[in-house]
Amino acid sequence: MAALIDKENWFAESEVMWPGQRFSLKVGEVLHHSRSAFQDILVFQSETYGRVLVLDGVIQLTERDEFAYQEMIAHLPLFSHPEPKRVLIVGGGDGGVLREVARHACVETIDMCEIDAGVVEVSKKFFAESTATAYGDARLTLVHADAAADPAVAAALARRQTPGGWPGYDVIIVDSSDPVGPAETLFEPAFYDSMRAALAPGGAVCTQGECMWLHLPLISKVVSACRDLFPTVEYAYTCVPTYPSGQIGFIMCSLDESRHALVKPVRAPVGHLQDQLKYYSPDVHAAAFVLPPFAERELRK
Amino acid sequence: MAALIDKENWFAESEVMWPGQRFSLKVGEVLHHSRSAFQDILVFQSETYGRVLVLDGVIQLTERDEFAYQEMIAHLPLFSHPEPKRVLIVGGGDGGVLREVARHACVETIDMCEIDAGVVEVSKKFFAESTATAYGDARLTLVHADAAADPAVAAALARRQTPGGWPGYDVIIVDSSDPVGPAETLFEPAFYDSMRAALAPGGAVCTQGECMWLHLPLISKVVSACRDLFPTVEYAYTCVPTYPSGQIGFIMCSLDESRHALVKPVRAPVGHLQDQLKYYSPDVHAAAFVLPPFAERELRK
Repeated sequence: MAALIDKENWFAESEVMWPGQRFSLKVGEVLHHSRSAFQDILVFQSETYGRVLVLDGVIQLTERDEFAYQEMIAHLPLFSHPEPKRVLIVGGGDGGVLREVARHACVETIDMCEIDAGVVEVSKKFFAESTATAYGDARLTLVHADAAADPAVAAALARRQTPGGWPGYDVIIVDSSDPVGPAETLFEPAFYDSMRAALAPGGAVCTQGECMWLHLPLISKVVSACRDLFPTVEYAYTCVPTYPSGQIGFIMCSLDESRHALVKPVRAPVGHLQDQLKYYSPDVHAAAFVLPPFAERELRK
Repeated sequence: MAALIDKENWFAESEVMWPGQRFSLKVGEVLHHSRSAFQDILVFQSETYGRVLVLDGVIQLTERDEFAYQEMIAHLPLFSHPEPKRVLIVGGGDGGVLREVARHACVETIDMCEIDAGVVEVSKKFFAESTATAYGDARLTLVHADAAADPAVAAALARRQTPGGWPGYDVIIVDSSDPVGPAETLFEPAFYDSMRAALAPGGAVCTQGECMWLHLPLISKVVSACRDLFPTVEYAYTCVPTYPSGQIGFIMCSLDESRHALVKPVRAPVGHLQDQLKYYSPDVHAAAFVLPPFAERELRK
C-alpha cells in the first residue's frame, strides 16, 4: 500500500468505486501496515485528521470526523426502538459502533460478528482512546466469522435462536466496508433475509448504505429488494468529510409497520449522553431521512 | 495553474483554507486557462463530473453537482419570502444563481454585481448549457464592481435607493468565493450592514457561509456579528461532493422577526419548477437548518 503514499507524504485513496475523483490526506507518520487474512490494514497519523484507519486502500475512519458515522448508524435504529435489549453488530471492527451501542443502558446483550480479527487487534492498539473503547464491556460477545456465509455465524446465531429462550435481536447494525472485497455478500438480498429471520418482533436493521451521489443505482436495487422482505424500508444519510463525496447513507429496515417507524425517534438521549453526542440529536434523526428530490425520486418509486 | 494538474492528469485543489486534505478530479481536457484582473480562471472537462470551473485553484462548480449549491443558496431565501420582487445577486458570475432566481415568476428585477467580467465571459462560453443560461433575461441588470468597496457599486445601489421610488431589495444573495482573495471583504460586518440598509422591510440576505467542518470559528464570528445587525440570523447547509469536506453552508439574515422566519418556507415550487428542481424541496428547506450538536452548540450560543 506504500504506493498510495506519494513522495510528498500525501495518502491518496484508491478509487475503484468512485472513478475520476480522489481524496487525499497529508500523512504525519505511518503507524502500522499489515496484511490480514482478508485485507490490507494501514494506520497513519494524519496532519489534520488525527489517526486514520485504511482498509484495502479506502479510508474507514479518521479520529476527527468518525463520530458523524458511528453515532448515526447506531443511534438511528436504537432511538427508533422503544427498548432495545439485544443488539447484533456485523462488522464494525474499529469498535466505534460498539462504543455507541454500549452507551444505551437498556441494552443487555451485544453480539458482534467481525470477519477480520486483525482489524480488532489493530484498533485496540491504535484507537484505544477513540473508537475501541468498549471492547471490555461485559455485555459483549465477539465472534470472528463471515456473517453472510460462514457456518460459524449460523452457529453463533443459532445459539441465540434455541427454542424457548432467545426472542431475536431488537436491532442489527451492519457496519461493513464497500461491496468490493470481503463485504460484497452483505449487500445481497439473501443476507437481508437472514437478518429478518434473526429479528425479534418490531426489530430493525441498519446497514452501511453507500453514497447517494455515487451509488444511487446500487442503493435503489438493495432498497427495492428489501421492500419485498420488510414492511418498512427507509434511507437516511449523514455527512462525513473523509468519506467519498463527503456523505454516506444507511439502508434501514424494520418489522414495525407503523407510519413513522424509523424516521421519528421514540426515545431521546438524556443527561450525560446528550452532552456527549456530537452529531446525533432527535432533530438530526428526523432530518437525516429528508432526501433531495434527485435521490427521493429514485428511491421512493 | 498548470502545476495543479499532475502528469497523470489529475487536478488537485489548492488547500490554503483546508490544510492537510486535498480533493482531486481526473482531467479529460483543459478547455480554458487565463488570468483576469482579479484571479486565475481555469475550465476543464473532467472525466466524471462534467465541465469544471476553477478560480485561484479552488473548484467553484462542476456540472454534476452544482445544482445542490445553486438551488439552495437561491431558493432558501426566495421561498422564505412571500413575494420577492427585487433581487440582488453579489458574485455568482457563473450564472447558476441567476438561473435559479430567474425561475421565480414573481421576481421583477434582478440586479447582479460580479466583480470579475472575466468569469462571466468564460461562463457564457463554456457553461452556456448548464449554469449560464439566464444572462439574456430581460429582468437582469449586470454591473461589474466590488460590491463591498467599489464606489461604482455604491452608485449602482444608490440608483435603486433614490427617494420616492426604490423600496429596497427583497432578497440579496451573496455567491462569493472564499475569504482569501477578492471576496475577503464580503465576510466583514460592514458589508452585512450595507446589505441591511439596502433591504426592503421583511427582506433577507443569504450568503455563501463556508463549511461547518472546516471553518466553524469563522462562521461563528460572522453569525455573531450579524446578530447585532438583524433580528433573525440562521445557518443552513447543503451537500456538494466537490466542495471541501463535501459540504457548504449559508449565513442567512432577515429583517422578518417572526418565529419561523427563514427556516420554514412560505411558498413552494409548483408545476414545472417542482419537476425541474433536483436538490430543493420544502422538506429539504426545513431540514437544511437542522445542525449536528457540534455545530449547533457553537453557532446558537
